[in-house]
Order: sequence, then structure tokens, then C-alpha cells
Amino acid sequence: MKILNSTPRQDGYWMPAEFERQDQIWMLWPFRPDTWRDGGKPAQRAFGEVAEAISAFEPVTVGVCAEQYDHCRSQLPQKVRVVEISYNDAWMRDVGPTFLINGKGGIRAVDWDFNAWGGLEGGLYFPWDQDQRVAQKVCEMEEIDFYQTRGYILEGGSFHTDGQGTVLTTEMCLLNPNRNPHMDRESIEKMLLEYLGAQKVLWLRDGIDPEETDGHIDNVACFVRPGEVACIWTDDPENPYYHQSREAYRMLCSFTDARGRALKVHKVCLPAVAVRTPSDFAVDHTRYALPRRPGELCSASYLNFLLVNGGVILPQYGDENDALAIKQLSEIFPDRKIVGVPTKEIAYGGGNIHCITQQQPSIHHLNDGK
Amino acid sequence: MKILNSTPRQDGYWMPAEFERQDQIWMLWPFRPDTWRDGGKPAQRAFGEVAEAISAFEPVTVGVCAEQYDHCRSQLPQKVRVVEISYNDAWMRDVGPTFLINGKGGIRAVDWDFNAWGGLEGGLYFPWDQDQRVAQKVCEMEEIDFYQTRGYILEGGSFHTDGQGTVLTTEMCLLNPNRNPHMDRESIEKMLLEYLGAQKVLWLRDGIDPEETDGHIDNVACFVRPGEVACIWTDDPENPYYHQSREAYRMLCSFTDARGRALKVHKVCLPAVAVRTPSDFAVDHTRYALPRRPGELCSASYLNFLLVNGGVILPQYGDENDALAIKQLSEIFPDRKIVGVPTKEIAYGGGNIHCITQQQPSIHHLNDGK
Repeated sequence: MKILNSTPRQDGYWMPAEFERQDQIWMLWPFRPDTWRDGGKPAQRAFGEVAEAISAFEPVTVGVCAEQYDHCRSQLPQKVRVVEISYNDAWMRDVGPTFLINGKGGIRAVDWDFNAWGGLEGGLYFPWDQDQRVAQKVCEMEEIDFYQTRGYILEGGSFHTDGQGTVLTTEMCLLNPNRNPHMDRESIEKMLLEYLGAQKVLWLRDGIDPEETDGHIDNVACFVRPGEVACIWTDDPENPYYHQSREAYRMLCSFTDARGRALKVHKVCLPAVAVRTPSDFAVDHTRYALPRRPGELCSASYLNFLLVNGGVILPQYGDENDALAIKQLSEIFPDRKIVGVPTKEIAYGGGNIHCITQQQPSIHHLNDGK
Repeated sequence: MKILNSTPRQDGYWMPAEFERQDQIWMLWPFRPDTWRDGGKPAQRAFGEVAEAISAFEPVTVGVCAEQYDHCRSQLPQKVRVVEISYNDAWMRDVGPTFLINGKGGIRAVDWDFNAWGGLEGGLYFPWDQDQRVAQKVCEMEEIDFYQTRGYILEGGSFHTDGQGTVLTTEMCLLNPNRNPHMDRESIEKMLLEYLGAQKVLWLRDGIDPEETDGHIDNVACFVRPGEVACIWTDDPENPYYHQSREAYRMLCSFTDARGRALKVHKVCLPAVAVRTPSDFAVDHTRYALPRRPGELCSASYLNFLLVNGGVILPQYGDENDALAIKQLSEIFPDRKIVGVPTKEIAYGGGNIHCITQQQPSIHHLNDGK
């Protein structure tokens, strides 16, 4: 294992799209009682169902802290690999490595600097020292060389790529002064392209969870194949994300990607009834963690799905639009099986299926990243 | 990953000899200040030198607790893989899995029950809960199915195998009532054969460290090839192990192995000057750990070497017999490179190179285990 001092773009590596072939999915096991209610037990059940759903399509490895090892192992099917990793919270998308390929059988990764979504200026908890080490530990376990961006803060949920040179992100997150206050928009974009091995950044303005991740793209829009994206959408002006979804849709329709293609934009519904923490919702109070209270709005989006080999693992909220979301995704992905998993408990903690997973691409891929 | 309910012998699996082809070596990183003096720093240097020496022959993976992760990673060469694993102390031989093969490309392992060399009746520390999980964690990381012997206590350093049906052990350890008091000699031997996939046990009487491991075989004798063993030896009646070494030699000369061969016995010297903890030796006092004091006798043996692919990693004590041990091992292993590593600091903690390592055999081997 080596920590590399060059950059992926210099070395001919890039991040493939999530819809490309994968080797496995990485997750972490939720436990902290100031994020997850009832000692984490409902969230653990939901994470377990997500892991099991994924494992029908491809291998899954779940990292777990020493204290939860026995319990986590006992709750997951045998075919899910469980390994010990320490972390502060269980958002593998944001603390895990971003994997890269070079089209010649090589695989590497980026270990982004991380400050718990805002550090001491609006971050979600303190400390985040164990989160910082997760990407390295994953890479080392798999013997994958990696790049480190110490001094450049980024989370895996704040961008999507099409594997053909285009990156999709939001200004609300990446330009937030609680991430990289010493850098301007241009240098932030330059780093993004350098470390994702890409050529063009498409900037949406806002995400839908300013209190949590400061607007990660993975609740709003994603690539579904080259030249095509999916975007949240609602016709209900009372929906709390009405304006954000229209603005995102409008902007996506105006974009051309790195290859000069105008994007085809697919609409995906939002839950009909905004998801809120229940009236008996209770988490531990701790000094440095974002308070989570009963009745609070949760950033619940059907866009926070995970693409796996031949499948889509899709959040379900017990909402009347659950079936519509499945139908829409079936139309967008006619060759994939759509598997809905009830994940309200994950939404209560501030994210969903995409936020708690990280795909490790196959080194056998189909395009050249340009 | 599966926990198997059958036994290796039933399934056609056996433990190959250490001198057979290996895939990698597993180690753990020492840290506890009540075993290792000066906060573990001298021992860490010695462990690091052992890992580096091994890595010249084959891959090494070192498990490390979360607290020591950064430091351990910084102290080891990049080519040594470092993974997070919790443990109570760093004796991978005794807490790690015992790997098995089936001659058809299969690899499995045994996860022995463990009680810190004697449990509450003379064990070396309390608790040993994290030690108990090490074998499982290693197996799961490598996706190797394993057998568990809950209720049957055994440590990897208490036996050697020739990979052809013969097991070598000591009565002092295996028949000690602080291991399996509910079992008689016959049932202990039966379990040993069942889980090592072997046919015959050769019982030596005593080891040389009754205070530590209750006489592990790996300080006394080992197989060097089929039908041949090495044994500690001294002509000095003042040597603290004079009687034990003669007794072991005499008994080995009287044995026939599982294939009916009389054993050829090679003598290996002991240090000329018995190794003792230095006068300024100091470890933390903790309630449940064996006290370690200045001037105490250490079970320092040249037999506690590790066989690796093409090499022998041999303890060196700064003793006048260091060179003689190298010479003797060169004669025993004319085709292997003998690499001496200064390991007095490991001996101060109660073991040596063999105690802190565990070999994972190659699935490509040369005999049928009978």
C-alpha cells in the first residue's frame, strides 16, 4: 500500500460512474445514540436490510467498531463480510474512499480530507478523528494505493460523476465556507477535476438538507447513464422541496456535459408527505452533536438510491409515492431490478441508502473515462 | 464466511507444517504498558524489525488497535499491510487462527477457545475478550470459513505439526488444569487430532516457561522437515534449562511419528547467559496482569524462530551463542536464508518471534497430510 503524492489526473485515473460494473459495496454499522434513536437498534435493522438487499447483487463488506462487533456480526447474513474499523458515525459514502480506475486494470482511491460536514462551523459532531482514518483503512485492507487531499475537504456524497469527464455537484455544499474557506470557486473546481480525473463540473445551486450536509447532490440528482440524469421533482407547491427541485431540474436541462451532450433529465418524485421525525423521537443529548428533535423535517428523497450490478436499491418511506418511485426508476433503468427497502430510520439520522454505502468499481469497465 | 459445525478431520482438512509454502504472515502490534516496558516503544521497534525481516520473504499483515493505528502505520514499511483489529495483547500465534488446507485448493481455519494462558487460575491478564475475537476477524477479512472450539482451550504456540499426521506438544501446557479441567488426557488428545486433522500426538513433558505459557512447545522443539525435529540443548549444567532440554531431547529420540519414522533430532543451542529483565526494567502495575520485575528469568530460546518461504527468522539476544545458533540453523536448513533479529525486548514480554506470528499456508502444497 502506498500513499501517492501525484494526482489521479496526472496518473490517468478517474472515478467511473456508479452505473458501471462494481466489485463490492462498503458500509459501516450505525451505533451512536446521539444520531440514531433508541440506541441505534431501529437504524441497525434498516442498515441490515440494505446490506442484505445489496448482497443479492454483489458482495458487501460492513465495517464495525470493536464494541459493536459481536452484535453486528449476529445481525447480518453470513455472506456479508464484517471487518473491524473504527469510525465516528456510519456514513461510508462521505468518509470512505472514492475509488478510481485507469482502464488498464488499475484501481486506486482518493482519501479526501473530512471535517464532519462543516467542522467547528456547523459540522454535525466532534471529534471526527476516526472517520478520517476510514478511507485509508479500507484501502489498506484491499491493498489499494491511494491519494490524500489533506487540506482539501470533500465528502463522497457531494458529487456524482458520469465516468466520462463530467462531475455534478452543488454550490451550497462545495462553496460553503465551512469546508474550504481558503479556496475560491475556481481552485475548488480545479481540485475536484484533478482528483476525480474529470474535465467539467456542472454546478447546481442548492441541495435540500442545509442543516445536515449543506446540500449534498445525492439527494437531488444523479447520472443514470452517459448523457442522462435523474432529478427530484414535485408538482405540489406545498412540498418543502418544491422550489429546490424545480430549480435543479431547470438547471440540469440547461447543461451540456464534458462530451458536449445536452443532458436528458428524468423526473423522480418526492415523498407525497414530507418525512419528519416522529413525536416520540429521542436521541441522546451530547455536547457536540447536532440536536435531533421530534417533528423535524428529514431530507427524504428517492434520489438517494444506490446503483448495484443489475439493481437499484431504493429508499421507501411508507409513503403513497413509494410505488410511483419504483415505477419511475423501473422506466429509467429497464434492465435493472428495483428493490425498495424501508429506510425511514436512516432518514431520521440525516441520510439514506446512498449516504451509507460506497461502491468499489470493477477494474473491468467499458469506457475510457474521457 | 461461515462458522462450521463439523470438524477438520471429518472434512478432510489438516494443518500443514510450518516449513511448507506460505501465503502470508499475520502479526499484532504490541502496546499494553503492563506487558511491554517503556510504553511498549522498545518492543514496537523489535516487532517492526521482525515484520520487516519477514517482508523480505513474503507478505506480512499487522493488526493494530484503533489507538495505535497511526503510530503503527508510521513505524512499519509501506509494504507491510496494517489493518485495524482489537486485541488484549499482541501474541498472534496464540490468539490468531490455525490455518488448515485440504490438498484440493481449500483453506479453512480453527478459532480455538482462549483464556489468556490459564484464565483466572494463573492466566497472564484479564480480560481477554478482544483476544477471543482475533481469529474470527482475521478469517472474515480473508473470507476463510472456520471451526470454533468453544469450551476447548488451546493456543497456537502449544503445538507443532509435521503436516503428515503428527502433532508435537507438552503435557505441562495441555494437561494443565487451568486450560481444560473438565477433560482427561485422552479427550484432549482426541480434540487435538480432530481439529488439526492429524493421527498421532507426541507428548513432551515440560516446556521452559511455567510462569508464562505453562510450557509451550515452541520454545523447546519443532519439526524442521518430515521425520526431523530441532530441540533446545545445552552442555552447561548451570543453564536454567539444562534438565528440560536433556529430557526433551531424550524423549524426542524415543518417538516415532505418525508414519512410523523414528525422529532425527537436531540440537540447537540455548543462550550461553540466561536472559533476564534488566535492572531498570519497569512496566505499569495493573491489577490483573502478571507482575514483571527487574532481574527475572526470561524464557529465551533460539527455537522460537519462524519459518518463512525460503527463510528462518531467528531470535538474537546479544549473546555469545547468537552466531552458533545461526550456524546450527544454517546446517539444519541449508536451503533457507537465516535472518537474525534482535528480540530481547520481546523475550522480556514473555515470548519471541514464533509467539508473535502466525503463518497462513499456501493452498498450493506438496503433500497429502497423511
